[in-house]
Amino acid sequence: MSEAFSVPYFKENFQQYIERNKDVFTKTHAMNAYYRSIVGTLINDNLNKNSEIVRRIRNLEKAYNEVKNQN
Amino acid sequence: MSEAFSVPYFKENFQQYIERNKDVFTKTHAMNAYYRSIVGTLINDNLNKNSEIVRRIRNLEKAYNEVKNQN
Repeated sequence: MSEAFSVPYFKENFQQYIERNKDVFTKTHAMNAYYRSIVGTLINDNLNKNSEIVRRIRNLEKAYNEVKNQN
Repeated sequence: MSEAFSVPYFKENFQQYIERNKDVFTKTHAMNAYYRSIVGTLINDNLNKNSEIVRRIRNLEKAYNEVKNQN
């Protein structure tokens, strides 16, 4: 299993979310919904420093772009 | 006009984005697409401190929730 909040971790999660919702959401819509829900969670986490929150969101964004460009 | 990156600013932008895309996106899909695009932009802004980036994303999240719950 990938390290939590790493790029591979978010990629796996995007792929699972797309797969689970494929009957109701297009790939892009599923990805945008997952992205919004994760950012909402990350920024409400008061245990972490802002630098760590920004690092995690950057990993999420990178994973988003990598999964989006996959066939 | 609202102060840039404030909650009212993001609310206005969500509403404009929903309106402009209403023929192709549902309200939720438009909001998620806009949200993703703004977060992607905010975190790639190296001019701002992490605390300012997190503050802006929190405003975006708050605006999202307020617009989402409007009829």
